[in-house]
Amino acid sequence: MTFTEVDERLVNTIRTLAADIVAKSKSGHPGAPMGMAPMASVLFNRVMNFNPANPNWLNRDRFVLSNGHACALQYILLHLYGYNYSIEDLKTFRQLNSKCPGHPEAELEGVEVTTGPLGQGIVNAVGLAIAERHMAATFNRPGYELINNYTYCFVGDGCLMEGVASEGMALAGHLQLGKLIAFYDDNHITIDGDTDVAFTEDVEARVKAYGWHTLHVKNGDSDLNGILAAIEEAKSTPDMPTLIRVTTTIGYGSVNAGTHGVHGSPLKPDDIAQLKTKFGFDPNEKFVVPTEVTDYTAKKIKAGAEAEAQWNNLFEKYSKEYSKEASELIRRCNKKLPAGWEKALPVYSPKDDAVASRKLSETVLTKLYDVLPELIGGSADLTGSNLTRPNQAIDFQPPNLKIGEWAGRYVRYGVREHSMGAVMNGISAYGGLIPYGGTFLNFVSYAAGAVRLSALSGHQVIWVATHDSIGLGEDGPTHQPIETLAHFRAVPNLMVWRPADGNETSAAYKVALETQHTPSLLALSRQNLPQLEGSSIEKASKGGYVLHDVENPSLIIASTGSEVGIVVDAAKLLESQGHRVRVVSMPDFYTFDNQSPEYQLSVFPDGVPAMSVEVQSAFGWSKYTHEHFNLDHFGVSAPYDQVYAALEFTPEGVAKRALKTIEYYKSSKPASRVKHAFTHLVQTGPGPFSTRERGAK
Amino acid sequence: MTFTEVDERLVNTIRTLAADIVAKSKSGHPGAPMGMAPMASVLFNRVMNFNPANPNWLNRDRFVLSNGHACALQYILLHLYGYNYSIEDLKTFRQLNSKCPGHPEAELEGVEVTTGPLGQGIVNAVGLAIAERHMAATFNRPGYELINNYTYCFVGDGCLMEGVASEGMALAGHLQLGKLIAFYDDNHITIDGDTDVAFTEDVEARVKAYGWHTLHVKNGDSDLNGILAAIEEAKSTPDMPTLIRVTTTIGYGSVNAGTHGVHGSPLKPDDIAQLKTKFGFDPNEKFVVPTEVTDYTAKKIKAGAEAEAQWNNLFEKYSKEYSKEASELIRRCNKKLPAGWEKALPVYSPKDDAVASRKLSETVLTKLYDVLPELIGGSADLTGSNLTRPNQAIDFQPPNLKIGEWAGRYVRYGVREHSMGAVMNGISAYGGLIPYGGTFLNFVSYAAGAVRLSALSGHQVIWVATHDSIGLGEDGPTHQPIETLAHFRAVPNLMVWRPADGNETSAAYKVALETQHTPSLLALSRQNLPQLEGSSIEKASKGGYVLHDVENPSLIIASTGSEVGIVVDAAKLLESQGHRVRVVSMPDFYTFDNQSPEYQLSVFPDGVPAMSVEVQSAFGWSKYTHEHFNLDHFGVSAPYDQVYAALEFTPEGVAKRALKTIEYYKSSKPASRVKHAFTHLVQTGPGPFSTRERGAK
Repeated sequence: MTFTEVDERLVNTIRTLAADIVAKSKSGHPGAPMGMAPMASVLFNRVMNFNPANPNWLNRDRFVLSNGHACALQYILLHLYGYNYSIEDLKTFRQLNSKCPGHPEAELEGVEVTTGPLGQGIVNAVGLAIAERHMAATFNRPGYELINNYTYCFVGDGCLMEGVASEGMALAGHLQLGKLIAFYDDNHITIDGDTDVAFTEDVEARVKAYGWHTLHVKNGDSDLNGILAAIEEAKSTPDMPTLIRVTTTIGYGSVNAGTHGVHGSPLKPDDIAQLKTKFGFDPNEKFVVPTEVTDYTAKKIKAGAEAEAQWNNLFEKYSKEYSKEASELIRRCNKKLPAGWEKALPVYSPKDDAVASRKLSETVLTKLYDVLPELIGGSADLTGSNLTRPNQAIDFQPPNLKIGEWAGRYVRYGVREHSMGAVMNGISAYGGLIPYGGTFLNFVSYAAGAVRLSALSGHQVIWVATHDSIGLGEDGPTHQPIETLAHFRAVPNLMVWRPADGNETSAAYKVALETQHTPSLLALSRQNLPQLEGSSIEKASKGGYVLHDVENPSLIIASTGSEVGIVVDAAKLLESQGHRVRVVSMPDFYTFDNQSPEYQLSVFPDGVPAMSVEVQSAFGWSKYTHEHFNLDHFGVSAPYDQVYAALEFTPEGVAKRALKTIEYYKSSKPASRVKHAFTHLVQTGPGPFSTRERGAK
Repeated sequence: MTFTEVDERLVNTIRTLAADIVAKSKSGHPGAPMGMAPMASVLFNRVMNFNPANPNWLNRDRFVLSNGHACALQYILLHLYGYNYSIEDLKTFRQLNSKCPGHPEAELEGVEVTTGPLGQGIVNAVGLAIAERHMAATFNRPGYELINNYTYCFVGDGCLMEGVASEGMALAGHLQLGKLIAFYDDNHITIDGDTDVAFTEDVEARVKAYGWHTLHVKNGDSDLNGILAAIEEAKSTPDMPTLIRVTTTIGYGSVNAGTHGVHGSPLKPDDIAQLKTKFGFDPNEKFVVPTEVTDYTAKKIKAGAEAEAQWNNLFEKYSKEYSKEASELIRRCNKKLPAGWEKALPVYSPKDDAVASRKLSETVLTKLYDVLPELIGGSADLTGSNLTRPNQAIDFQPPNLKIGEWAGRYVRYGVREHSMGAVMNGISAYGGLIPYGGTFLNFVSYAAGAVRLSALSGHQVIWVATHDSIGLGEDGPTHQPIETLAHFRAVPNLMVWRPADGNETSAAYKVALETQHTPSLLALSRQNLPQLEGSSIEKASKGGYVLHDVENPSLIIASTGSEVGIVVDAAKLLESQGHRVRVVSMPDFYTFDNQSPEYQLSVFPDGVPAMSVEVQSAFGWSKYTHEHFNLDHFGVSAPYDQVYAALEFTPEGVAKRALKTIEYYKSSKPASRVKHAFTHLVQTGPGPFSTRERGAK
């Protein structure tokens, strides 16, 4: 099928719309959409399978705009191809309450993942492609290729400079993700000007070294045949992802085309006028989609509806022949956990052995692994330390490597924390899967960019973050988190669990798995922790609760994780001296903050001083407690019990500070910290500021 | 010079010591030190210039152990080559108060940078090599090659998988850092087992694509000649950094050599015995350094002392011929700022125009640029947004690119935030330079791993973090930091400035530049900010101060940055309604926390309710304020004034919450939040837990 004038018209419609959109909003990036219009038009019009009437069709091809600042392009495509984006919507680009925000957000129709932070999108695409391989291997049956979609991704120079992209692309090469096809918008321009100032590597050679197939379209501004031929050639190597380098002119058509001047600010009115004239558009009209273009894209829209209808027929037949698989697929895509799954969660009593919470986590994962086949785990090369791999697991690997299979559910991420986070976001976005990944808590910080996008996008992703404190001992301060809990507790829509024992570990997984649009980070100990009197899955599921109580307490000590057991012993010591101490366990601030004010006040009542004990920064604790026994400095390398002793995180050390607190508040009854003069800062229900609804499209 | 038996003896001494050290401490990594012993012995004995009697000799070759978990190797080398590490010190490996902690720490004698978090060290090495090129170009004169050291770095598979390493190595290739020579310990083993499970790329091809020279020593276990020849060949390409891939056997000599079993746990006693027998050592003796080895290394130690003596002669002559340059070099290496430098800091009065604090920062940098030639700046491809490049700046680039010069002081980092942080740590570690680097505040999070190492190591590094809030507007929630200030405020030994106007911006730079062993992050606005009545450099330098006061206030409103001006207007509004409001500006929590308790209490006195106003997470504010008007959700894409209005961060919105606070505390006088039952958690003076002294060796 050859390209004709209408294809060129389509390309230039995209270009003129991009110029109009950014000019109208006086904000945004016109250059990249104009440069990428040819590849976008070929991809959407000739190659991609999608049905705008059902943007969530399971087997649709996925499209990720990794250079998310070019999102005017994406909104234009969504408009042209029949998604629920009107011309009026395009006119609201980057304005309050717009459907077309400054960067693509996952909760929008037709947008797979939230992009903009550079490097993330291409790695989300790797995750989407992993999910496709895995779901295909799990659910396809002879004669029923239910799942076989491609993942397409546009990346720019910025993405390719980011380390997270290097990590993720290296993983994709190793995993032989042949259905991942990325287009590199090689336009030689970044914000600082020409790429010659900082980015002079041989990108194709580098990506080839990762095990990718690379191709080059030299004239990406008009060689539509070349672009289509490259896509076809990309599909000829099913064992290799492909990078198609498409050399383009940023802002093609503008008088400043090819310069950094068209990157991040609107084109001038007379520039837009000459551009329209040059492309055969009326310079006085704005936001024009010529009828022949509408007619043309309508054919593709119709073809998409037919494609899904055919697929639905296939699925109907599959449902008859493989009814169990079909209903399982539906269950998983609907994010319904199997009835009674939670009965598999282990329950402990104080008689049980002291066990490290990383080990307790392993037990949970092992018990849930067969019950929840949607769990797909992994580790950033710390499997034996994170204990993330149940014995029965099979690695997710290309079958030809003979060390795993596509249906395997354990991903060897390599020492690539940031891309593990971004891959998990992609897996979550695909649907039907709940990813978890392990590393040391301290190194989740390497992935901070991906973690905040999990939270912003509402991806149900679980971080198994072991070695969660100075309790890791000998590895020392480079590996001992101090600020890390505070960092992640401050992220909206993110649970940060730090369970104190077996029941709390089960509770952490229970809430993490039941909460569909909130990611979780589980901070787990290297060292053994006793099973506590008074803990239960139910109580811990409230995020904070009274673990040990007395009548009329003179002090509350609140703590988390490995310090709770120490606090319980301190309380006993204090009680033996005639003091009355309540012990509160606070495994997750986020979940506790979502309890009713009455419940929160029942845990931290008025008039009782409260003291926190946690071997990390006190930062943030003062919202619950008046006094703090925490760390305001980095840790030290030594066996963990010696570190705790040196820092006085012992029952005696806690009791010493508890006594000072009791003494200090002897004559005053402090108000509870959980009571406030005002609580609702501003309406944050459904709407642009809602986080609760994120991911729930 | 050929290698003889004593060289082999030296190699095996290192191997047996590594086995002994880890076995004695029952913790650590014996395998990599044993595998890297040959390359280490060739490098230290035959190649590197250093003088153990003066570990801080300016022109010493730098050595970075990027795979820091192999640090037993480094401590052994420091012992063998005459640094202040005794055999007894080696026996305390990974124990409390040891000179030989679990990973190398920069404050230790002979250790250039803190390593362990994978990928950081190789990029620190890039920074060290940048610093060398720059200092050489700045201070060398005809006949006086004062500065011409090499930077050597050992990296493992783990480092090479990390994205930060990819970023930094790409930059090093672009910058043609020919005096950077890295050794890749190609041992095929990581924690998850064989690298075949996740790391199958062609490392040499990838690194060559960055513009590096690559070499391969196939038998790194015993081919000492091959290693030496490779180093010599590496030096033959002065325009390219070199990666020498050295194929080794992890745990060479152990019965489990070449397996993951020798990676992270001690060898068994009988394994150590057979190893010693095999290498001709007495299996019953431990921690043995044969006399012939001591005699051999003594020659190198002597040669090092002579090398420095020669250099000192050269410097003495230089001092006579170039006395100004010599005293400037001494001043800079001693970290003494030039007298009166602070007079260049701009001062503002309320009559001056409203200006964005990123622009105020540009003015400071422009005024200081000639006064402080030790400033070496850059941006992660956001120069025009961060405003980090003074007009008079010249780019730091290889001269043959014709776009800058080695003496240039502006680094084009590319879109590589994480490596920018790690490079800045390396530049700081070199000495004589104070690096600063720009990106959006939200993307400093990409560099969290490097930022915490700045703080842990006490590097004086300045982050120019612009677009610091929802105030960036249209780019939307993907770019609007919410948790970011809380995250970095929780890091020990890190200043997080968020200046409210011109005087506060000058104060932030003043304190950042005067504080030698604490990094700073400057959070700066995109939008214009008024010059405030009551601000001054002196007051703001306390980190928090009363900006606007009244007698007997009924409310304190504390705020930072762009919200302070809004709060001042809210205070006026409230005063017009008969309320008495004190406004506190809190540009840096860290600096405020270091003021006397009396001063802190004078700002936040007992009995007056305090409310915070800041357009980020409230997390952490409760240590100062009772009530909080902050954000507990992500932002939104829209013009910034509309975002502020929608979220009610307006004088009226602040006043509304202020009134609720005044009403709520009408009948109770809350205690000041800065008073505590106990303050000193544990002794943190000089010693392993001290952070104040970090970097001050």
